[in-house]
Amino acid sequence: MNFSIIIYIIGYVLKIEGILMLAPTLVGVFYGEKQYIGFLIAALITLAVGLLTSFKKPKNQVFYAKEAFVSVPLSWIFASLFGCLPFVITGDIPHFVDAFFEIVSGFTTTGSSILTDVEALSHASLFWRSFSHWIGGMGILVFILSVLPIASGATMHLMRAESPGPQVDKVVPKIKDTSIMLYIIYAAMTVLQIILLIIGNTPLFDSVTLAFGTAGTGGFSIKNLGLAAYSPYVQYICGIFMIMFGVNFNVYILLIRKHLKQALRFEEARWYAIIIILAVALITVNTKYLFPTFEEAFRHAFFQVGSIITTTGYATYDFSAFYPIFSQTILIFLMFIGACAGSTGGGIKVSRITIMAKTVRDELARIVHPRAIKKVRNEGKTVDHSTVRSINIFLMGYLAIFAISLLLISLDNFDFSTNFSAVAATVNNIGPGLSKVGPYGNFSEFSDFSKLVFCFNMIAGRLEILPMLVLLNPKTWSRPFKYHHKKRVN
Amino acid sequence: MNFSIIIYIIGYVLKIEGILMLAPTLVGVFYGEKQYIGFLIAALITLAVGLLTSFKKPKNQVFYAKEAFVSVPLSWIFASLFGCLPFVITGDIPHFVDAFFEIVSGFTTTGSSILTDVEALSHASLFWRSFSHWIGGMGILVFILSVLPIASGATMHLMRAESPGPQVDKVVPKIKDTSIMLYIIYAAMTVLQIILLIIGNTPLFDSVTLAFGTAGTGGFSIKNLGLAAYSPYVQYICGIFMIMFGVNFNVYILLIRKHLKQALRFEEARWYAIIIILAVALITVNTKYLFPTFEEAFRHAFFQVGSIITTTGYATYDFSAFYPIFSQTILIFLMFIGACAGSTGGGIKVSRITIMAKTVRDELARIVHPRAIKKVRNEGKTVDHSTVRSINIFLMGYLAIFAISLLLISLDNFDFSTNFSAVAATVNNIGPGLSKVGPYGNFSEFSDFSKLVFCFNMIAGRLEILPMLVLLNPKTWSRPFKYHHKKRVN
Repeated sequence: MNFSIIIYIIGYVLKIEGILMLAPTLVGVFYGEKQYIGFLIAALITLAVGLLTSFKKPKNQVFYAKEAFVSVPLSWIFASLFGCLPFVITGDIPHFVDAFFEIVSGFTTTGSSILTDVEALSHASLFWRSFSHWIGGMGILVFILSVLPIASGATMHLMRAESPGPQVDKVVPKIKDTSIMLYIIYAAMTVLQIILLIIGNTPLFDSVTLAFGTAGTGGFSIKNLGLAAYSPYVQYICGIFMIMFGVNFNVYILLIRKHLKQALRFEEARWYAIIIILAVALITVNTKYLFPTFEEAFRHAFFQVGSIITTTGYATYDFSAFYPIFSQTILIFLMFIGACAGSTGGGIKVSRITIMAKTVRDELARIVHPRAIKKVRNEGKTVDHSTVRSINIFLMGYLAIFAISLLLISLDNFDFSTNFSAVAATVNNIGPGLSKVGPYGNFSEFSDFSKLVFCFNMIAGRLEILPMLVLLNPKTWSRPFKYHHKKRVN
Repeated sequence: MNFSIIIYIIGYVLKIEGILMLAPTLVGVFYGEKQYIGFLIAALITLAVGLLTSFKKPKNQVFYAKEAFVSVPLSWIFASLFGCLPFVITGDIPHFVDAFFEIVSGFTTTGSSILTDVEALSHASLFWRSFSHWIGGMGILVFILSVLPIASGATMHLMRAESPGPQVDKVVPKIKDTSIMLYIIYAAMTVLQIILLIIGNTPLFDSVTLAFGTAGTGGFSIKNLGLAAYSPYVQYICGIFMIMFGVNFNVYILLIRKHLKQALRFEEARWYAIIIILAVALITVNTKYLFPTFEEAFRHAFFQVGSIITTTGYATYDFSAFYPIFSQTILIFLMFIGACAGSTGGGIKVSRITIMAKTVRDELARIVHPRAIKKVRNEGKTVDHSTVRSINIFLMGYLAIFAISLLLISLDNFDFSTNFSAVAATVNNIGPGLSKVGPYGNFSEFSDFSKLVFCFNMIAGRLEILPMLVLLNPKTWSRPFKYHHKKRVN
C-alpha cells in the first residue's frame, strides 16, 4: 500500500474543502452573523491540514485499484470530519456526532437530519448544509480530479472507485474532459433552476439552497415544512429538476453533441421515465380521495415520486402519516430502485435493476429452450460476464450492509418500520423514511452508535458499497505475500 | 411441450394423494366424527381423477427440464386444489380460498393459518393438516419418485426442479435409492420423536401431529396456544428435533455410512450450528429481563430460534408482542437465512448464504491483490461458475417475488411490519410473522386476493423460486422455433 500518495490525495481534498468553506463564511459576513468566525476558523484549520499533507507530491507514484479503493472512502471520511467543524465551533450543532452525521448526510446527498428545528440555524450553516449537497452530488473526487496533478491511470482508478455504476462508460474518452464537461452541465442546470425559481418570486437565498439540494439530489431544506412551505410553482420546478438531475448525464452529453437519436434511445433513461410515469399514475389514483382537487393529488404524487426515486428526499406532504400503505409501498420500492447510473442520485440504480431482470428472464428462457442462447444486452451492447458479476457482488454487499445495520440499530428498540426505512433511507441516500424518520420526522432520537452506523451506510451507499467494504476488510491491510500468486488461467 | 406426460405425472400425484386421504378418514372414524364422510368423498374424487388421468402410460416419453419445471409446480397446485376438498366438504373450512390457503400452507410446510380457532376443528381435519406437513416436507414428488415408473432421466429432472438447492448433490449416485433412503431416515426420526413425546406423557394424537409438524418443519398446531400449551419437556424435544430436521440430510447419510469425519466436517451443518448458537446466546441475554429464570429465557430463545431458522413456525412465546426489537430483528434474519439445503426446511438456505458471502470476500481480496486468484470453495470443492450463477438467479427471482407480492398485498392497507413479515413468512415457508400475523395472530383478515398471493409465495418458496417463474413465463408456452438457434460458443 502506497500510503504517501493516499495521504497526498486526502490532503488535496482537504485543501479544496478549506477553500470551499470560505463561501459559507462570506454568507455569514453578508448576513451579519457572528457565526462567520466559526466558519473562518474551520476553513483555516482545514486548509492548513490540507496544505501540510499535500505540500509535496510524493516520490512514489505507484497507484493501483487498491490505493484508489482506500483513498476514496478515506477522503470522504476526512472531508466529513473537517466539514462538521463549523457546526461544532459555531455551536449551531454543538454535539460532534450530530454535526458529523449532518455533514455526512450533506456530502453523500442523503438529506437525513438530526435537527428538530432547521430554522434556528444561522444562514452560514444553512448555506453550508445545502452547499455540501452540491459539492457531494457530483462527487468530491470527480471535482478534485479536474484539478489534481496525478497520472491519468490513477485518475481512472479513483473515478471507478468513487462512481462505479454497473458499467464503465466510454462516451467521453478522456476522463478529465468528462469531469469538466459534467461539471459544466451540472453548474448550468443549477443556474437555470435558480433563475426559474427567482422568476417565481422565491427569495435568492431560498432559490440557491433549493437548487443546491435539487442538483445534488440531497434534500436538505431551510424550512421546517420543507417544500410544503413553497408555492405549487416552486414545487413543480423543483420536481422537474430533481427528475432531470436523476437522468444519466451521458444523455445530456449526447444531446450536446447533437446525437439526438442516441439520446432518445438511451435505455436506462427510458426505463427511468416509464417507472416514474407508472408510479405517479398509481399513486395519484390511489390517493386522490385525500385531496380536494385532482391537481393536488397529482402534484404531491409527482413530487414525492420524483423526490424518492432520485433519492433527493424533499417533501411536500407527509406521505408516511397519510398515504395509504399501497402508495407507501410504491415509494419504498422507488427508494431501492434509485436514479440512473451516472447521475447525482443514489439507490441501486435503474440500469442495475434492468440488467438483473434481464438475466432472470434469460435464465427462464434457457430452461425451456436450452439451445436458444441469448446474451443479455444493455444499451444495445452485450453485457459481459464481469459486469453481471460486479452487479451481483454489489447486490450481495448491499444486502449484507443492510442486514447488519438493521440489526445494530435495532438495539435502540424503535419499531420495525422506522428501523427498516431508516436503513433504506441512509444506504440509498434518500433522507426521510417512514414513521419516526418520516418526511417530517428526523434522526435525532437515535443513539450516537446508531448515528455512526447511519454515517457508514450513507458513505457506503454514495460510493456504491464496495469501497467501504474494501476499507473494512482486514486483508486490505495485509501484505500481499500472504497470498499464493498464481497466473490467471482464463 | 409434452403435455401427455405432464398430465400423467399430475394424475399419479393425485392417485397417491387420494390414497393418503384415507388416513384422516380413518382418524375420523376412530373418533366417531361425522366428518369422515367428507374425507371419504374427497378421497374418492381425488383417486378417481388420478386414476383417469394416469390410467395409461403415455406413448411419448420425451421428458426434458422444461417438462419437469412445468409439471412440478402444477403437481403442487393440483395436489392443493384436491387436498383442500375435505375441508370444504366437511364444512370445517367452508370458504374455498381459505381451505386452499390452509392446505397450501400445509403441503409447503409453511404453517401459516387463516383459522382463528384451531381447536374447533375435527380430529380428521387436524390430522390432515399436520399430515400434509409430513407429506410435503420431503417433497410430494420425491415421494412419488420412489414409485413412479418413468425413466431415470426424467426422475433426475423432476428432482432437480422440486428441490434444487445450490448444488446438485452426488452423495448417493442413484436417485431412486436416495429418495428411498431419505424417506427411511425421515420416517425413523419421526417415529423416534413420537416415542420420546409419548414417554413425556403427551397424548398419542398430540404426539403424532406434533411430530408431523416438526418433521416437515411445518408448524401447524392442534392447540390455539401452540407449543405454549405443552410442558418444557415437550418444548425441548420439539426444539431439538426441529433443528435436527433442518440439518442437511446428507449428513445423516454420511453418518449411516460411518463417514464420521466427513459428517463432522460438513460445512453447511457447521455454519448452521454456529448461527443457531450465536442467535440463541444473543436473544437469551437480550430477553432475560422478561423471565423469572434464566432457564425460561434460554428455553424460549432456543425454541424460537430453532423454530424460525428451520422455518417451522411453532411458538412457545409471543415474541412479536414482547421481545425487544433487537431480538425480533435477529429472528427476522433467521427467517431469511433458513435451514440447510437438503433438509425439509425453507428459506434462502445456509449454503447459499455462505457461498454468497465467500464470493463477496473473494471479490474484495481480488481488488487489493489482483494477482492472487482464489476460487470460491464450498464443502471442500471449488464452486463452479454455474452454481454461482444459479444462486444469483435465485436471489434475484426471490427479491422480485418478494417485492411484487409486498406491493400486491399492500392494497389491504395493513401496516408495513405486518405486510413485510407476512411475505417473509410465506415465501420462506415459516408460518408466523410479526404484528397481525405474529405467532398468535393469523392470516384470516387478508382479502382473498392477498391469500392467493400468499399461496403463490408459499409454493414458490417451497420449490425454490425458479419453477413458479418458469410456469408464469409466457415464453415457456411458446414454440421454440421463435428463437434463433445458435451453437453455444463456449
